[in-house]
Amino acid sequence: MNGAESLTRSLVNQGVTVCFANPGTSEMHFVAALDQVQGMRCVLGLFEGVVTAAADGYYRMADKPACTLLHLGPGLGNGLANLHNAKKAGSGIINIVGEHATYHIEHNAPLTSDIEGVARPMSHWVQTCNDSTQIASAGADAVEAARQPPGQIATLVLPADTAWNPGGAIPERRPTPQRASVPGNAVDEVARALRSGRKTALLLGGAAGRETALMWAGRIAAASGADVLCEYSLARLERGAGRVTPKRVPYSVDLAVKMLAAYEQIVLIGSRPPVAFFAYPGKPSLLAAPGCEFVRLAEAHEDIDGALEALVDALGARQTQPLQLATLSRPPPPGPGRDPIEPIGLGQLIAALIPEGAVVVDESVSSGRGFDQPTGQSAPHSWLNIMGGAIGHGLPGAVGAAIGAPDRPVIVLEGDGSGMYTLQALWSMARESLNVKVVIMANRSYNILQGELKNVGVLAPGVNARAMLTLDTPALDWVHLARGMGVPGHRVESLQELAQAMQNALRTPGPVLIEAIM
Amino acid sequence: MNGAESLTRSLVNQGVTVCFANPGTSEMHFVAALDQVQGMRCVLGLFEGVVTAAADGYYRMADKPACTLLHLGPGLGNGLANLHNAKKAGSGIINIVGEHATYHIEHNAPLTSDIEGVARPMSHWVQTCNDSTQIASAGADAVEAARQPPGQIATLVLPADTAWNPGGAIPERRPTPQRASVPGNAVDEVARALRSGRKTALLLGGAAGRETALMWAGRIAAASGADVLCEYSLARLERGAGRVTPKRVPYSVDLAVKMLAAYEQIVLIGSRPPVAFFAYPGKPSLLAAPGCEFVRLAEAHEDIDGALEALVDALGARQTQPLQLATLSRPPPPGPGRDPIEPIGLGQLIAALIPEGAVVVDESVSSGRGFDQPTGQSAPHSWLNIMGGAIGHGLPGAVGAAIGAPDRPVIVLEGDGSGMYTLQALWSMARESLNVKVVIMANRSYNILQGELKNVGVLAPGVNARAMLTLDTPALDWVHLARGMGVPGHRVESLQELAQAMQNALRTPGPVLIEAIM
Repeated sequence: MNGAESLTRSLVNQGVTVCFANPGTSEMHFVAALDQVQGMRCVLGLFEGVVTAAADGYYRMADKPACTLLHLGPGLGNGLANLHNAKKAGSGIINIVGEHATYHIEHNAPLTSDIEGVARPMSHWVQTCNDSTQIASAGADAVEAARQPPGQIATLVLPADTAWNPGGAIPERRPTPQRASVPGNAVDEVARALRSGRKTALLLGGAAGRETALMWAGRIAAASGADVLCEYSLARLERGAGRVTPKRVPYSVDLAVKMLAAYEQIVLIGSRPPVAFFAYPGKPSLLAAPGCEFVRLAEAHEDIDGALEALVDALGARQTQPLQLATLSRPPPPGPGRDPIEPIGLGQLIAALIPEGAVVVDESVSSGRGFDQPTGQSAPHSWLNIMGGAIGHGLPGAVGAAIGAPDRPVIVLEGDGSGMYTLQALWSMARESLNVKVVIMANRSYNILQGELKNVGVLAPGVNARAMLTLDTPALDWVHLARGMGVPGHRVESLQELAQAMQNALRTPGPVLIEAIM
Repeated sequence: MNGAESLTRSLVNQGVTVCFANPGTSEMHFVAALDQVQGMRCVLGLFEGVVTAAADGYYRMADKPACTLLHLGPGLGNGLANLHNAKKAGSGIINIVGEHATYHIEHNAPLTSDIEGVARPMSHWVQTCNDSTQIASAGADAVEAARQPPGQIATLVLPADTAWNPGGAIPERRPTPQRASVPGNAVDEVARALRSGRKTALLLGGAAGRETALMWAGRIAAASGADVLCEYSLARLERGAGRVTPKRVPYSVDLAVKMLAAYEQIVLIGSRPPVAFFAYPGKPSLLAAPGCEFVRLAEAHEDIDGALEALVDALGARQTQPLQLATLSRPPPPGPGRDPIEPIGLGQLIAALIPEGAVVVDESVSSGRGFDQPTGQSAPHSWLNIMGGAIGHGLPGAVGAAIGAPDRPVIVLEGDGSGMYTLQALWSMARESLNVKVVIMANRSYNILQGELKNVGVLAPGVNARAMLTLDTPALDWVHLARGMGVPGHRVESLQELAQAMQNALRTPGPVLIEAIM
């Protein structure tokens, strides 16, 4: 058994059963080993940003890490932006990055680079293993690192000769790392704060977006008079009818400051004190009211469910009816005619059509800022946000989500500008026959940046600035782009056409792309 | 004048007149400043890998650096693979990377990352400037760093508040950094080695691929009996009728070892001792014969032309007729019929059709390994190789080459696998109406990797391995992909159709894509 096979056996033995890959020459033995070991599903991405975002989406739905297979420093570099997003999402990923053979590195062949240096900014754990008999063990270490709550980026660099030289023993299956309990006084302190009579928000983040945590939070709110809020972005928020629906802290600094102005204290539950996505001249970085006190219940890596349950008991709220519980209320479909596709109508349409159990991957950027309002009373669904702000997560994130939750339909709400970063993901959707419905919101501009330019005080952008923010010369044609990668595509120009196209798409298995001209 | 405007003025004043950009919120003031200063051409790329490869291609043709405008750590990360290629090419680039405002960084907003950490592996020079009054000066420093021979990657990180706070004085135009003379004894030692009677190769790399250097090398070869070789990859090689045509060291380890076996000594002229692109079990890393002696004339950053001229004089060869001088000899066009498109016929067809003055960007990977043979006697042209081995350079490299050499037609020889990495470049070609003709060699596989799998001893790949190396389910449709980005596309399935399509394309202004099914 060579090193490559020992590594593959080790990964499978540790419960890693999906490999998102874009391999090269230095990984050929690993590719060969994938056929010598049962139990690893291999998914090819035609660009490494697809691979890493898919691993992120997979973790969010499967609650266990996938591995990636990447080619040297540049291959890792191509995956870095979506590793950044995954890191901020608290997603566990094991990156296997090929390196030149140990004795070849000194010769500085063209692909030589400082792989650990590339890995470090976006990894929690980085290791190079130069001994073929140890890579099975290093692989198990990497899995263990990736599974540290809430999930970590572990990057294992493997010189090519560790793949073809003899492998070593396969480590035993290691126990799943458990979330740490919150500090002993945290629950009591929050209970005391909630009884203080001060105007309070419970701010949910991370795993507090899951169904049980939401239900506990709704009971705590009912018992204490607090409001349930959530961060602007969550890796996965369970939403819709029957779930407690937190109010989302807005992206806009002004709106967020306005929303938070009322609160004298904020209880942090898997969340951090709200900060502006960007700084703007004359606007604050911190969004809570001056003097607002933060009381921490649980950090993102801690046992959020346990802490909430203890808090519910401390408040005697186990039988309390939760606050902010959503009931099913679908907006009516658009009436006859040809209404233009704009964010409000689009949000209502999506709210009406989300099927029960759907996974919504939201990279709608500017168009989707208000989608959370109408969709809160849709059929029950999971909502996945882009977490690190590095656009290009949506399409490939949906690839991973669909593989992590194979029985659930996936809807991607994608901007045309952001979709272009990793459009290669469409090919993987077709290749794997994934049940993903892509809605491209084609406003043919970096619309968010046009707003941002106004925010920094440029009201009449000149020729160069306009050229940097428009995508209309030439207009992108997403129907052709999709077809070029084997995904059927349709262009719609009215809400009515969009409703029809989405209904058809949801009835059709496999991927479909709808370009909604806005 | 704010910092952003001061920086733009400074860059223009230092001779930087092209900005390849994919900006975000933290760069909005820089975008606005681009309209307040005359003399900067802005070219938008819809992905950062397009931006950085374009800057590389531009440098190779314009012999001066462009700047890039990139959005924080993830934006830089997306550009990293092509910065790796540019670094290996010796191309000068000034990366302007926006960062959060100085006071905002500590709040760890979603896009926060270690930008310098991301930059360092692929940059020669990295600096963060936190003072708006100093960024004009830091910009001039970055340009100076980028212009250090043969060209360097300079990355300047600028927090957003340095853009909107007041700018400082604009530094004077600095002199162009000159190439260092070779050490005093280098020319004499090479002259002595050439007179030793040992079997000798002159190995050209870097700027030794330019016309004057080639001519000197051909004279030295004629006077000394040495052969003129060149490295497998050159950033820019002047080729075709009237030029001295070096023999290319092959990619294949076996073929390279065979070619180099004859040589007792190799004179390094802007080159390094030849090494295998990758290590393989049982094959050498170093390609020259054991005991072969390396004699250095000039390193890549030194005055290669001057050293060659001095060597010519030392050998009294100024009037000697150069060896390996190419005469025009175009292969005949394919006869009637429908011949399948395969590498040999394709190479001859390209050789026949390259127009005088063309720039050929070669990322043909496996299909193009033999193109150097037939094209050596084509009309005079420049040939640009991918330098760092990180595929995804070709299409965007051509964007930059076309902007750097606006009067010359550009032909891109692109693999279908490699083209997919940065296909967004097609949109920039259409946007800028660039005279680029793209030939996609569609073998619908990672053909090079199928060969590499054999090289590592896997003769019958299994299901997973095959799935990692084929692009045929579904087949990519490059005509649709091109049309989706505003570039007219044509599919051809025979050499005769390809000849017709290329002739039409070369007569048509603006970008055209031809998908050659192989």
